[in-house]
Amino acid sequence: MKVGIIGFGYWGANLVRNFANLAGAELKRVVDNRSERQKYLANLCPSAVFSTDPDDILLDPEIDAVVIATPVFTHYELAKRALTNGKHVLVEKPMVSRISEAHELMELSRSSGKVLMVDHTYLYTGAVQKMKQLIDSGQIGNIKYFDSTRINLGIFQPDVNVLWDLATHDISILNFIIGNEPKSVQATGISHTNNGIENIAYLTVNYGNGFIAHFNCSWSSPVKIRMMLIGGDKKMIVFNDLEPTEKVKVYDTGYEHKTDEEKKNILVDYRAGDIYIPKLDTREALSLMAAEFRDAVTTGKRPLSDGVSGMKVIEILEAAQHSIKNKGIEVDIRRNS
Amino acid sequence: MKVGIIGFGYWGANLVRNFANLAGAELKRVVDNRSERQKYLANLCPSAVFSTDPDDILLDPEIDAVVIATPVFTHYELAKRALTNGKHVLVEKPMVSRISEAHELMELSRSSGKVLMVDHTYLYTGAVQKMKQLIDSGQIGNIKYFDSTRINLGIFQPDVNVLWDLATHDISILNFIIGNEPKSVQATGISHTNNGIENIAYLTVNYGNGFIAHFNCSWSSPVKIRMMLIGGDKKMIVFNDLEPTEKVKVYDTGYEHKTDEEKKNILVDYRAGDIYIPKLDTREALSLMAAEFRDAVTTGKRPLSDGVSGMKVIEILEAAQHSIKNKGIEVDIRRNS
Amino acid sequence: MKVGIIGFGYWGANLVRNFANLAGAELKRVVDNRSERQKYLANLCPSAVFSTDPDDILLDPEIDAVVIATPVFTHYELAKRALTNGKHVLVEKPMVSRISEAHELMELSRSSGKVLMVDHTYLYTGAVQKMKQLIDSGQIGNIKYFDSTRINLGIFQPDVNVLWDLATHDISILNFIIGNEPKSVQATGISHTNNGIENIAYLTVNYGNGFIAHFNCSWSSPVKIRMMLIGGDKKMIVFNDLEPTEKVKVYDTGYEHKTDEEKKNILVDYRAGDIYIPKLDTREALSLMAAEFRDAVTTGKRPLSDGVSGMKVIEILEAAQHSIKNKGIEVDIRRNS
Amino acid sequence: MKVGIIGFGYWGANLVRNFANLAGAELKRVVDNRSERQKYLANLCPSAVFSTDPDDILLDPEIDAVVIATPVFTHYELAKRALTNGKHVLVEKPMVSRISEAHELMELSRSSGKVLMVDHTYLYTGAVQKMKQLIDSGQIGNIKYFDSTRINLGIFQPDVNVLWDLATHDISILNFIIGNEPKSVQATGISHTNNGIENIAYLTVNYGNGFIAHFNCSWSSPVKIRMMLIGGDKKMIVFNDLEPTEKVKVYDTGYEHKTDEEKKNILVDYRAGDIYIPKLDTREALSLMAAEFRDAVTTGKRPLSDGVSGMKVIEILEAAQHSIKNKGIEVDIRRNS
Repeated sequence: MKVGIIGFGYWGANLVRNFANLAGAELKRVVDNRSERQKYLANLCPSAVFSTDPDDILLDPEIDAVVIATPVFTHYELAKRALTNGKHVLVEKPMVSRISEAHELMELSRSSGKVLMVDHTYLYTGAVQKMKQLIDSGQIGNIKYFDSTRINLGIFQPDVNVLWDLATHDISILNFIIGNEPKSVQATGISHTNNGIENIAYLTVNYGNGFIAHFNCSWSSPVKIRMMLIGGDKKMIVFNDLEPTEKVKVYDTGYEHKTDEEKKNILVDYRAGDIYIPKLDTREALSLMAAEFRDAVTTGKRPLSDGVSGMKVIEILEAAQHSIKNKGIEVDIRRNS
Repeated sequence: MKVGIIGFGYWGANLVRNFANLAGAELKRVVDNRSERQKYLANLCPSAVFSTDPDDILLDPEIDAVVIATPVFTHYELAKRALTNGKHVLVEKPMVSRISEAHELMELSRSSGKVLMVDHTYLYTGAVQKMKQLIDSGQIGNIKYFDSTRINLGIFQPDVNVLWDLATHDISILNFIIGNEPKSVQATGISHTNNGIENIAYLTVNYGNGFIAHFNCSWSSPVKIRMMLIGGDKKMIVFNDLEPTEKVKVYDTGYEHKTDEEKKNILVDYRAGDIYIPKLDTREALSLMAAEFRDAVTTGKRPLSDGVSGMKVIEILEAAQHSIKNKGIEVDIRRNS
Repeated sequence: MKVGIIGFGYWGANLVRNFANLAGAELKRVVDNRSERQKYLANLCPSAVFSTDPDDILLDPEIDAVVIATPVFTHYELAKRALTNGKHVLVEKPMVSRISEAHELMELSRSSGKVLMVDHTYLYTGAVQKMKQLIDSGQIGNIKYFDSTRINLGIFQPDVNVLWDLATHDISILNFIIGNEPKSVQATGISHTNNGIENIAYLTVNYGNGFIAHFNCSWSSPVKIRMMLIGGDKKMIVFNDLEPTEKVKVYDTGYEHKTDEEKKNILVDYRAGDIYIPKLDTREALSLMAAEFRDAVTTGKRPLSDGVSGMKVIEILEAAQHSIKNKGIEVDIRRNS
Repeated sequence: MKVGIIGFGYWGANLVRNFANLAGAELKRVVDNRSERQKYLANLCPSAVFSTDPDDILLDPEIDAVVIATPVFTHYELAKRALTNGKHVLVEKPMVSRISEAHELMELSRSSGKVLMVDHTYLYTGAVQKMKQLIDSGQIGNIKYFDSTRINLGIFQPDVNVLWDLATHDISILNFIIGNEPKSVQATGISHTNNGIENIAYLTVNYGNGFIAHFNCSWSSPVKIRMMLIGGDKKMIVFNDLEPTEKVKVYDTGYEHKTDEEKKNILVDYRAGDIYIPKLDTREALSLMAAEFRDAVTTGKRPLSDGVSGMKVIEILEAAQHSIKNKGIEVDIRRNS
C-alpha cells in the first residue's frame, strides 16, 4: 500500500511517524502548503517526498491511499476528489462539517469500492477497548447515562466550535461503546470572541429509552479534565484519561428502585462495593488505527471507524450546532436512509 | 433570643448542636413528628424540651425565633404560620417549592417586621467568603463563566428533583459571588425511577451579557465530585470542596482575543502563570450562619442569606423545573417586582 | 461493667463518647486535673461524675474497669495502681515509656487475672482488618517489605519523640498484619527544638529473613501523608488513609528473579496487572475497640490489642530510642522471656 | 564542536536527539556494541556515522567532545581515555563507581584543561531551577530538612544498587539547592535477589548543623512516587515531579519554638498560611544541559554540573555503600582535598 498524506501539522506529524513505521505500507509523499515544513519531513521520514500541491498525491496513479489531516472545512473536497480518483481515504476527525457531505462521501465510497475511514483514534485506545469489552460482557448492565467532561485551556479553533473540536472524541466513544440510536439533542454555550464561535458548550443527547448522554466542553478552563462517567444498572465506570495508568475504574455501585405500594413512596436501594481497575493495553492507539486502515485497504475488512461511524458523529454535531444557534431548542436526529 | 427548632432529622441535629452552643440564644424546644427522636435530643441538648406538635413552638409566646428544618414541601406553611404568629424565621434551603410562596413569605416578613432568613450554609464557608472577596477585589476581572459539578451516589429525594436538592447550593453561591441578573434558563435531565423525578439533571443559566452558568447534578454517580470553575478575564478560580484544605485555587490564567483586521482571523493570546491557594477561614459555617440569624433578630441587621437571596434561588429552580418538563425549552426568568 | 476514665483531653473525649454509648457498660466517673473540663463532660455525658483526683476512680470499689488517657509518662504508675487495686485496665498507646514497665504490667495482669489492654485503635479499622485478611489468605504471598510514611504539621510532644507519637500506630499495624519477629532496629532523626526531642525521625526494622520495615515520621511537614506500602511476592498493597473511601488498593504487581547461570546475570521478571479496591467496614474503630475491652472484661476473651501487643510496640520504640541517641547504631531487639 | 556519543541505549537515544539538534554542535559519530542499533540511528540522525568500537571516537582527531552513556562500571575507563586523548567529556550520572576514580578524572581534567561534566539532567529542569531561586532568595529561610521519596516498579540494575540508580538524582538536587557540606551518612536496605544488590534502600545524610536529609528509594513499589519535601524555618516546599504542571508548591507553613523559662516547657508556634505554585520553565532539561556542555567547551564557562558536583554525589553514594554493607553504621564523609 502506497500512502500519501495531505496536511503536515501537529497531528499530521504523528500520522507520518506512524505510517513511516507501518509494516506493509510505504509513505510515498507528504503535502503541506507551508513549504518550510519540508525540512522537518526530511528529518522525520527522509524517504518520503515533500510538495505543496495536494494534486501531487491525488493524481499520482502509484498512490493507493490518501490520508487527509487538513482543517475540517477542507475535508469534504479533498476526500471527494481522492475517492473520485480511485484512492482509499482516511480522514481526520471530524469527518466533514455537514451531514450531507458525509452521506455524499459514503455513497462515493460505496460506488467506487474504496475504503472511507475516519481517524477516531480514541476507539483504538486500551481504555476504550476495555470499556467496550466490559459493557459487551453484560457486567455493567443496562447503561443509564454517559457523562463526559473535556475541558482545558485550549486553542480556539477559527472555523468550528468547541463541540466540533472536543466532543467529537466523546461522541465517537459513546457511539462505539453504547450503540444506542439518539433521538434528539439540545445544546447551549457561549462565545467569548467576536466571531460567534462557542468556546464553551454543553450538549445533551436524548435517547427516549431511559438513557441520556451529556457533554461539557471548554477551551477556557484553567485546569485540564478528561473524565467520563458511564452508569449501568449493575456497575458504573469512571474513565479518567489523565491518570497515567489507572484510567478505567469499575465501581460495583448501583441503585435499585421499587415502589412501596402502600405509601406510594419510592424506595431506592443503594449499593457501593469493591472497585476494580483493569490493566489496559498500552500500545499506541494511532499505530493500531493505521494498521486498521492498511487492513481495510489490503483485505477489504470493514474498519472499526468507518464512514458510518464518522457520519453518526456528524449527525449529532450538526444537530447540536442547530440547537445552540436556536436558543437550545430540542433538535431531532433525522436519519436519512 | 429564645429558639424553637421544627424538624430534628440529619440536618436538624446540626442546627440543634449549633443553637445549643450559640451565645445569646437559648434553644427552648425541638419538635419532630418521630417521638423516638426524644431520646437523642436528651443526649444532644438536655435543656431543650422535645415534643411532636409544631404548634408547641409556633404558638409559644416565649419563643422569638423559629428554625424550620422539615421537608421542602412543608416549608411554606410552617414559615407562613410562624411569621403570622410574630416569630422570626430561619428556614432550610431551598426556601419553598414555588416562587409565589417565596414572594408571599417575603411580603409577610416585610409587613410583620420579622426576619426571614434562609440557611444557605455555603455562603458562610471560608471558601465562598474568600471567592467573594477575590471577585469583589477585581483581581479575577470580569467573570465569563461559572461551571459547577455536584454529583455522588445520593439519596433520591421523594418530592423534589436533583436540582432542587443539589443545585440549590451552587445557585446560592453563584448569586452571592457573581450577582448578575439571569435572563433565562434551560434544563435537561432524566428520571430513572417511575415517579418522574429527575435523579440526573443539567442546567444552563443565560445572562445575555457574555456570562454563562452551568450546573451538572446527579444522585447516581459512583464518585463524589464537588467542583466549581469560575473564569474571569484576568484570572480563574477552581473550588474543589473535597480537598481537605486546598479548596480554592486561583489561576493566573486567561485568554485575550483580538481580531486580525486584514485576515479576518481571530487571534487569541493565552496565558498560564502562577497559582495561588489562599488560606481559608476554617470556622464552622453553620455556627456563623446561626450567629447571623441571632444578629438579624437582635440587632435588625440584614442577613446575608435573607428572603431575597432565598427567593432568587427559587426563581431559577422553578424556571428550570418548567424547562426540564418542556423538552428543555428556554424559560425566561420573570422578575415580578 | 462500670467504667472510669482518667484523662479527658482530645482523645479522652472520644473515649467518653464511645463508652457512654457502649451497650453493657456504664461510664461512672471521668477524672481530669483541669477542673474546667467538668462543664464539657456535663454536655457530653451528663450521667458521669467529674472529679480531679485519679484515686476517685482507682479506689472506687464499684468501678471494674479503668481507661487511662493521660500523657505517656504517667501510664505506668496509673496502670500499675489500677491493676493492683483489682481493676481491668485499658491504656492509651503507647502503653508505657519503657519495656521494663511493660513487662511489669503484663506480670501484674497475669497475677491479678485482670485484663491489660492497649488502645491501638488502628487495628480495629476496616482498612487494617482487610489488609490482615488479605495477607492471611495468602494472596499477597510472602511479605518482603513494609514502608510507612506518617507526616504532617503536628503538635510537638513535650515528653516523647515523633516515633513514640506517630510510629506507634504503624508498628502496631506491622506487628498485627505481618507478625514476624524483629531482630534489630536502626533509627536516625533530628530535633529542631532545644529539648533534644526528635521532631523528624526515620526507623528501619530488620528481620533477617528477607523482610524489612521502614518508617518515616515527622511533625514538621507542610503536607499530611498517611501512606503504607506492603510488598508481597505475589501482590502488593497500598494503604492511603487519607482517601475517603478507596483506602486500600491491591496491586497484582510483582517481580521474580532467576539467575541466568551462564551469564551470571540476574534476570528479573516484572508484572503489573489489575488493581482491586475492596470495600471496607466503615464502623467506627474506637467503638469496636471499646466493645473488645468490654468483652475481654466480661467474657475473658483475649483482646486483639492485649498487653503483649502493646509490649511488642514498646520493644521497637525503646530500641529505636537507643539507636537514635547513639549515632544510629544497630540495636538488637532482646526479647526477655 | 564535533561530538561523539558512546552508548546508544535508552538514554543515549535522548542524547543523540538533543545533540543532533543543538546549534553549534555537530554529532559526528555514535558507538554502541550492539550493531543492530545502526538502523535506529539512521532513522534518528542520518548524518551521524555508526560503529561499534569506542576507539573510533576516542582516537578520532576531528572529534572535540565525547559523551559517555554506557553502564556505570565503564565510565571511569572511557572518560579517562577520552581526557587523555584530549577530548572534552560529558559523562552520564553517576559519574563513576568510586570516589578515587572521581578524583583521578577531576585531576586529568585540570591538567589537560578539558571539560569534565556530568549529566545531572535534573539540575536543568524548571522545577529545580525554581527551587534554587526560591531558596537563594531567602524566602524559605534556613533549610531544616530535605526528604525525598523516589520509588516505582523499576528495572533492577545488575551492577549498582538502587541508591546509585535513583538517589543519584536527589543527591545532585540536594547538593545544588542546599549546598551544605555533609558530615556523615547512614544507610539501610535489603536485596531481594541473590546478587546482594539492594533493590530497596534508605539513606540519612547528617550535617551536624540542624539540617538533615533522607532518601527512600525502591525498585519494588507498585506505585510510582517522585516527591521531595524541603522544610525551611520560614516556608516549606513540596516538589511532586509526577504532577503535570503544578510540580512545585511553596507552603507558607512553619513552626517556631521558644522555651518557656519558668515551666521548662517547649512552646511551639505553628503557622499554616497561603500556598503558592510558581509557573515553571518548561523547556526540555536535556537540551539545556547539552547547551551547557557546548558552552563549557567553546567558551570555557564552568558548567553547572561539573566534575566537582559529580564527585560530591559519589562521596555520599560511596559512604552509603559502606554503611549499608556494615549494619548501617555512621560513615563519615572524608573530603580528601
